[in-house]
Amino acid sequence: MQNLIFTNDVMDAIGQIEAQGDHNLTVWIADENTARLITPAPPCLITIADGDSNKTLETVTRVWDEMEYMGVTRHSLVINLGGGMVTDLGGFAAATFKRGVRFINVPTTVLGAVDAAVGGKTGINYHTLKNEIGTFAPASDVIISTRFFDTLPMQEMKSGFAEVIKHAMLSDRDELLRLLDHDFNAPINHDALLERLRRSVQVKADIVARDPNEQGERKALNLGHTVGHAFESLAMRRDKPVPHGYAVAWGLVTEAVLSHMLLKFPSDDVHRLGYFVRDNYRDFPFTCDDYEDLLDLMRHDKKSRNGEIACTLLAAVGDYRIDQTVIDDEVSAALDILRDLLGV
Amino acid sequence: MQNLIFTNDVMDAIGQIEAQGDHNLTVWIADENTARLITPAPPCLITIADGDSNKTLETVTRVWDEMEYMGVTRHSLVINLGGGMVTDLGGFAAATFKRGVRFINVPTTVLGAVDAAVGGKTGINYHTLKNEIGTFAPASDVIISTRFFDTLPMQEMKSGFAEVIKHAMLSDRDELLRLLDHDFNAPINHDALLERLRRSVQVKADIVARDPNEQGERKALNLGHTVGHAFESLAMRRDKPVPHGYAVAWGLVTEAVLSHMLLKFPSDDVHRLGYFVRDNYRDFPFTCDDYEDLLDLMRHDKKSRNGEIACTLLAAVGDYRIDQTVIDDEVSAALDILRDLLGV
Repeated sequence: MQNLIFTNDVMDAIGQIEAQGDHNLTVWIADENTARLITPAPPCLITIADGDSNKTLETVTRVWDEMEYMGVTRHSLVINLGGGMVTDLGGFAAATFKRGVRFINVPTTVLGAVDAAVGGKTGINYHTLKNEIGTFAPASDVIISTRFFDTLPMQEMKSGFAEVIKHAMLSDRDELLRLLDHDFNAPINHDALLERLRRSVQVKADIVARDPNEQGERKALNLGHTVGHAFESLAMRRDKPVPHGYAVAWGLVTEAVLSHMLLKFPSDDVHRLGYFVRDNYRDFPFTCDDYEDLLDLMRHDKKSRNGEIACTLLAAVGDYRIDQTVIDDEVSAALDILRDLLGV
Repeated sequence: MQNLIFTNDVMDAIGQIEAQGDHNLTVWIADENTARLITPAPPCLITIADGDSNKTLETVTRVWDEMEYMGVTRHSLVINLGGGMVTDLGGFAAATFKRGVRFINVPTTVLGAVDAAVGGKTGINYHTLKNEIGTFAPASDVIISTRFFDTLPMQEMKSGFAEVIKHAMLSDRDELLRLLDHDFNAPINHDALLERLRRSVQVKADIVARDPNEQGERKALNLGHTVGHAFESLAMRRDKPVPHGYAVAWGLVTEAVLSHMLLKFPSDDVHRLGYFVRDNYRDFPFTCDDYEDLLDLMRHDKKSRNGEIACTLLAAVGDYRIDQTVIDDEVSAALDILRDLLGV
């Protein structure tokens, strides 16, 4: 399994991993921004262009070429430093080079820390499809830290926080209520935030440990995502992309409403969640004219089969049910309530 | 683990796998020759060019493109029909498409049946390096049959048989002696040969099950290959390639001699093996002038570290020892004895 290390002394943690292992070479993979965070500059550094549009096979082949040139072997260590783009692509490059070189992930964003870096999914976009090519290959270690967050744009911070909320919804109502009290405008309390990340990541790690290849229970982690992906895809199609976590936040509220309708998820919790999302993720760019397109996208989600829309829903916080089928009218009604809650 | 099916009614076995699974689509991957073996022609067939020189990233991207076009999902089934080139490349394409589509291997060569198709190694060549990019990803099922062997060139037959001999050397002296009595000129006795394959594949499968990612014991399967790969690479470098199994056969004799020198492997067994290789794999294209090049290649083998040559050796048939270091003089002496035994 993956070794999860929670610390704000990242270089010390990396030093310990290097000291314990018997590696002939350490290679860093970073993007143009995160490369500057490594001091002193490491001898072997592969820098890739920033942004999801560069998460391509062309970039991977350049990484493989550099790994070959640097003399990476099965006894080497790869360190991925960056957001989800770097850990997804760097993980794929390492997992397929000589059938697998050990790699560790050092996420620099909230989303990376609680989602992309943990759980063994690697991949790249291919043609227009996200994460179409990839493998299940866990980083040996993930070093989770809040030390990169002070300079993180607020939108990035909020986007990642939506996944933190999702993990609490899957596990622990007290933690959920603590999170829904979060004030994004206050300065970061690093110790407190690291503790929130610790709890959040553990929820994901526990579920992944029971179902690493997404045969069943791991689908619980798709809470909010059947509806959220539809928002994200429709916005993308219109060339007005929204951050992943914003789409997930709206998806979490919609699926909480569906959970209330179908599984008696408490309306009190729907409202608490709804108000937090209204206060922090309000700029919702859809109207009732978009419902047909959204429903169509949900039917084509990878969790859906035979044209039926399938979600993960909740009977209560921590009591999740995968593979729940919902019908169009139910989704439309839930979208109406979402728009009411957001006041849009 | 991999389900191994030994049968000469291949289509029936495939039909059963399809009937048991809940797949939305079956896609075949074959090369230009093996594609003709599928009757009636299947609706979804991806044909790739024959030969190791086509085991490239370009071919994989074409396979991914066709999979996308055909609508392959995580609920589809891929059937790789062919030699090691098809099962290696088709396995890699399937294992990385949407982070893994179920695939089964139907090897059509002896080498494919007892080596490439079993054990979860997938991969492609990259630049000049063999199997440089790949994953450990087991086929869910491997259907092993002798029905494709009647039309197999004798050289292919002998090449694969060297790996069958290797597996017997790792496990069972009675089986080894039976194999060393084999007459390649007699017509194929399908029932008897299928039984030989069953025993051979089981040796590999048992070792792989204990060490799927080649951390330790799996290196036993490299018996004959530290020296064998050096023969293969040097022949390739001179544009006079030799079949993989021929190089392995010479490597097995050389490493049996080293085993005798270092671990008292019985000389009687060295001689029986040597005579069989002399009678069937004689056309050995090296002289003592080549020793330096061969030693240099062995030092760069992926099993070797710090410039020391490492082999798997035997104390007796079935009693293998991995990570055995040998020095140049010992290898040179063993190569002398190999040439004596072969009479070249």
